[in-house]
Amino acid sequence: MEIKVVKKVLEANEVIASQNRRLFREKGIYVVNLMGSPGAGKTTLLERTLLHLKDKKRVGVIEGDIATSRDAERIAAHAASTVQINTGGACHLDGNMVRGGIGEFDLDQIDILIVENVGNLVCPAEFKIGENDKVMIISVPEGDDKPQKYPLMFQVSSVLLLNKIDLLPYLDFDMEHFRGDALRVNPRMEIMAISCKTGEGLDSWFRWIEERTSRSAS
Amino acid sequence: MEIKVVKKVLEANEVIASQNRRLFREKGIYVVNLMGSPGAGKTTLLERTLLHLKDKKRVGVIEGDIATSRDAERIAAHAASTVQINTGGACHLDGNMVRGGIGEFDLDQIDILIVENVGNLVCPAEFKIGENDKVMIISVPEGDDKPQKYPLMFQVSSVLLLNKIDLLPYLDFDMEHFRGDALRVNPRMEIMAISCKTGEGLDSWFRWIEERTSRSAS
Repeated sequence: MEIKVVKKVLEANEVIASQNRRLFREKGIYVVNLMGSPGAGKTTLLERTLLHLKDKKRVGVIEGDIATSRDAERIAAHAASTVQINTGGACHLDGNMVRGGIGEFDLDQIDILIVENVGNLVCPAEFKIGENDKVMIISVPEGDDKPQKYPLMFQVSSVLLLNKIDLLPYLDFDMEHFRGDALRVNPRMEIMAISCKTGEGLDSWFRWIEERTSRSAS
Repeated sequence: MEIKVVKKVLEANEVIASQNRRLFREKGIYVVNLMGSPGAGKTTLLERTLLHLKDKKRVGVIEGDIATSRDAERIAAHAASTVQINTGGACHLDGNMVRGGIGEFDLDQIDILIVENVGNLVCPAEFKIGENDKVMIISVPEGDDKPQKYPLMFQVSSVLLLNKIDLLPYLDFDMEHFRGDALRVNPRMEIMAISCKTGEGLDSWFRWIEERTSRSAS
């Protein structure tokens, strides 16, 4: 019973997500759906990315949160434009929420839209929003056993950013085990080890997003 | 539309959860619903707790996971009996899943049932399973800004375990800010700072769960 209901909700969402997708394509906007657990480092990654892209691309940001506009306030200083979506309890963004958010932007003034999803390693992976790529961020303290335990997010993501590698000396985290498990779940995924605190590894991520943006614009 | 559907699911769940609750009361079993993000330390806390209670109480464990039985395997060595529930994609346990799990136990042989929910700081908080207390665990690397951003779980929990305090020297985590925010969201919540790695602070938690168990048995 519950499963049927969920399926219907997902189907309705696919339709709206495709409409968003079409609109983004028409406007030549490259869209990233950024997902990860609470505290994985989504907002800090976004700040770093916006600083890097500042003079190269015009970046719009949608901040998805259950409550508060704290992340949007952190981000607003760096982005061309920022829209906050408060889900009011819902544990993920869906196509319809993002459609509402898009209305607040001048889409002719944006090259990239980064959507920071609600902090959750599970539900956001089920709901398309019209993105080109899903990008997941997970942090070293979350443990090296996550790919098999939370497989869907690993399956649907184009890139896996493993954040907080500056904490590796203080934790038992088996990098090879983690990489192996992640690639078994999704062999096509690109894995980048980063630290948003020290900046280590971020160059690969910056190159990746710039390259994808150019490709989607051409 | 979607909200109505969710409401109906929640109402149906309340009914089943109350039935579980009644059964647990009849059998004199104290039940904890243990919740937190992936990697917050739920399974390690459980191992520590089981070791402590070993010669004092008979503890049954339900392990909720989306996939794999890794946690149940870790736990089985220490618990009187362990049941694995794989949600097959669902991001939380509900009353019905737990009802299925209960059938696998001899309820006359258990004093405490600890249910480790799916790793998720959002959805599990919405679904009662028949517990006496909800206990949440969150770890220092997740950041000090979580109470206001993910309020529901803080609101419904009797105890907040702040784990991985051994990592405080390496992170920017403002303990007073965090405590203040958490208590604003839920003034009745007990907050315990712990490290499942070093054992620091766990005594308070052990005392709490023993005290609650005795009270529910009397």
